[in-house]
Amino acid sequence: MNEPRTTAREPALDRTAAVADAVRDAHELGDFERVVELIGAALALDDLGAVTAGLAALRPPDRVDVFETFDIEEQRHLLRELADPVAADLLEELEDPFAGMIAAGLSPEVLAPILDEMETDEAADVLLDLPQGQQGAVLQAMDDTAEAEVRQLMAYPDDSAGGRMTRDFIAIRASDTVEDAIEHLRALDPDDGLVYYLYVQDAHDHLVGIISLRQLIVAAPGSRIGDLMTSDVLSVKVDDDQELAGQTMQRYDLRALPVIDLEDHLVGVITHDDLVDVLSEEATEDMYRLVGLDEQERPLDPVSTAVRKRLPWLALNLVMQLALVAALTGFRSTIDRVVALAVLFPLITAQGGNVGAQAMTIVVRLLALGEFDRAEVRQLLGKEMLVGLINGLAVGLLAGLIAIVVAGPQQAQVIGLAMVAAMTLNLTIGGLIGGGVPLLLHRIGFDPAVASSVFVTTLTDTLGVLLFLSIYLGLASWMGM
Amino acid sequence: MNEPRTTAREPALDRTAAVADAVRDAHELGDFERVVELIGAALALDDLGAVTAGLAALRPPDRVDVFETFDIEEQRHLLRELADPVAADLLEELEDPFAGMIAAGLSPEVLAPILDEMETDEAADVLLDLPQGQQGAVLQAMDDTAEAEVRQLMAYPDDSAGGRMTRDFIAIRASDTVEDAIEHLRALDPDDGLVYYLYVQDAHDHLVGIISLRQLIVAAPGSRIGDLMTSDVLSVKVDDDQELAGQTMQRYDLRALPVIDLEDHLVGVITHDDLVDVLSEEATEDMYRLVGLDEQERPLDPVSTAVRKRLPWLALNLVMQLALVAALTGFRSTIDRVVALAVLFPLITAQGGNVGAQAMTIVVRLLALGEFDRAEVRQLLGKEMLVGLINGLAVGLLAGLIAIVVAGPQQAQVIGLAMVAAMTLNLTIGGLIGGGVPLLLHRIGFDPAVASSVFVTTLTDTLGVLLFLSIYLGLASWMGM
Repeated sequence: MNEPRTTAREPALDRTAAVADAVRDAHELGDFERVVELIGAALALDDLGAVTAGLAALRPPDRVDVFETFDIEEQRHLLRELADPVAADLLEELEDPFAGMIAAGLSPEVLAPILDEMETDEAADVLLDLPQGQQGAVLQAMDDTAEAEVRQLMAYPDDSAGGRMTRDFIAIRASDTVEDAIEHLRALDPDDGLVYYLYVQDAHDHLVGIISLRQLIVAAPGSRIGDLMTSDVLSVKVDDDQELAGQTMQRYDLRALPVIDLEDHLVGVITHDDLVDVLSEEATEDMYRLVGLDEQERPLDPVSTAVRKRLPWLALNLVMQLALVAALTGFRSTIDRVVALAVLFPLITAQGGNVGAQAMTIVVRLLALGEFDRAEVRQLLGKEMLVGLINGLAVGLLAGLIAIVVAGPQQAQVIGLAMVAAMTLNLTIGGLIGGGVPLLLHRIGFDPAVASSVFVTTLTDTLGVLLFLSIYLGLASWMGM
Repeated sequence: MNEPRTTAREPALDRTAAVADAVRDAHELGDFERVVELIGAALALDDLGAVTAGLAALRPPDRVDVFETFDIEEQRHLLRELADPVAADLLEELEDPFAGMIAAGLSPEVLAPILDEMETDEAADVLLDLPQGQQGAVLQAMDDTAEAEVRQLMAYPDDSAGGRMTRDFIAIRASDTVEDAIEHLRALDPDDGLVYYLYVQDAHDHLVGIISLRQLIVAAPGSRIGDLMTSDVLSVKVDDDQELAGQTMQRYDLRALPVIDLEDHLVGVITHDDLVDVLSEEATEDMYRLVGLDEQERPLDPVSTAVRKRLPWLALNLVMQLALVAALTGFRSTIDRVVALAVLFPLITAQGGNVGAQAMTIVVRLLALGEFDRAEVRQLLGKEMLVGLINGLAVGLLAGLIAIVVAGPQQAQVIGLAMVAAMTLNLTIGGLIGGGVPLLLHRIGFDPAVASSVFVTTLTDTLGVLLFLSIYLGLASWMGM
């Protein structure tokens, strides 16, 4: 971060330092536009020294924000000219599809050494976004060790523990001394981000323990790792879902989680930053699915992508609503006779959908946090129904008053009563449907979030209106109207 | 974790070891019910040695799951009898209101030494849940240093950086050598969870740098901390929102974030586990608010609490729907004439609400992740409207066909056309409302998630139905029907 200030007379160096200083000042003032302007001006003059110095004055995520303001050819030009570790940092920070799109325009000779410098899991993500042909050429141009590790990671699905883990972990032996371990650490000189624990393996590469840096620091240099290490280590398998890995790290408050293959060999580690990403992604996924959005959609995707992803869902929603339209058509003559009924439909549907969505959100979130306890299922469903019943009665009485006003003197009694009864029943059932559908989906192995408002709402809408109309007809005929 | 196995003949010790072994075995098999049964049996016999040993064989979160199966008097009995550090671990893992409820039944003499052993931020949370009178008595019975630190933390709001931070951090001076720092660390012997960085302060307790354990390990013992430390350190203020702290840690990939007071003194640190909790809580809060739930509601709250928290919201929802009921009442004679219109309402409202909820979810999530960029606002709103327009036209054509079937021969043309036009317009405006309302709320300093489906849906429902009816009437009169 602290670039040495040059005092040389050489004009290029002076300008480089001046740009870096100006960028640093503007950034400290929070003036992002000025930062972009300064680095953009240097880029326009093709003064790569100044561009590099300007970018170096920023923290990596801020650097990428500036980088993203350039057009794609400028971005590629910069990646070609920057030192490999700097280019690697930029690609690591870019979001998945963008890093791949930019990389796709670079030759294997340029791209391979940049990927060699990246964390292996990030490099694998970029490669997976490249066209097949280019993928092979770039892999071949990579450093042999990096290539082998990246190839292995590319074999795992994106959202599995294997797809999330990095292969950059530090392994030692139980027979090593503390001094050996420190010597090893000094020789590797890893990034701060990568090391919190050292992993202890036996001769067959099986994970037998972990030791934290803190333990290493306070131990006597001659002690054996095997005597100090914690041997009760939690881990996940390569093919476990990333959500399980995230839940395990969250529940047991772990900074890093070892990943083992089917033969119990240690093959990678999921680190703190991965946990944070997994939690964020899973929350976004649930929120998106609850309203019928594809979790892959990005806020600024092209319109065509958004249309393509959302239209089938809207069409399905329309088709489902046909059930309600058909039901209403069946009651056409009733509505024809008593228009007030149709005027009151929105009260029924809006409340039912709302109660259903609330119960569903509670259940989906509970399941996502892994705080799900079988014994609590019945209790939860019972509670949601009871809450629906009481709220339904209260809201139903209020809605009944509105109904009396809307219905006019002749129908006031019947429509008012039908409203109270229908609202109470619909909200009770809404609590059951909203809570029950995601639980059911979870039990049979589906993502509970796909229950989503649309399905639950269609169910409660149709049911609510049918209840209202049937109860009205029943009451009317009973009262001899 | 690895309790020494006893070989003594003393029967109590034998039983203690046997329970611990049995618990460990059952836990490894994932048989939670057997674990509860074993420890519960020991508790029924008041064999506290065996209970303690059984609990000690579990990891802290699993231990708490067992503890939660006991009734509150058993829980208090256990806390009284267990060693203070063990009791402290239990209280730390319990969720906020429960820890307070249990602690409220303990005398200050029992509770104070347990709180002394807890992390300061967790102790403050428990104290805040106690009745006022008891709070003071417990604080007075606490160790003086712990009392002072906890009192300070209790002054900050729960969801501020100050309310989240712990005061258990390790501070050193720039003039210290690496050897001094390691000596200091050795003397304190902190938990692994608490230490990743050491914080470097000047003589006035201002934060001047940080140094990681990794840097400390690989450095020469005689080097000065001031020469090694990173002096470009990110921090937050005590009164900043916890969400800002979370976003900063997530964006810059930080394991720990220093918190400074208004005079720039280092007063605490937000650690990795806090970040994870903040991210989880903020996601839950957004998901809950989007469906009008209070973020404080817990899945298994008593029915009375759930009713009290949700009823006002449902009532508000009902009152808002009055706008639509009133509008429909205005069109009563039209509906009376053409019942098919009422039958088709659900198609309009379901689609509009859906599109609005999708746009809203995208914006709320974008804002929550702090990936909000002013320049992108217009682009995003424009995109959502355009997506709504295209999807509206496509879904509208489909809905138009349904309308033609429902309407019957005489009205087919007019109602079909009105449906296509109303759907297209409503979905375009739905995209604008869904995306625009949370953005507007954010700009004027409100939580965008309170825009929530209910408001957006009421708006799109009312608008959609009014559009449909008005366009129908316009077309009908233009066509001379």
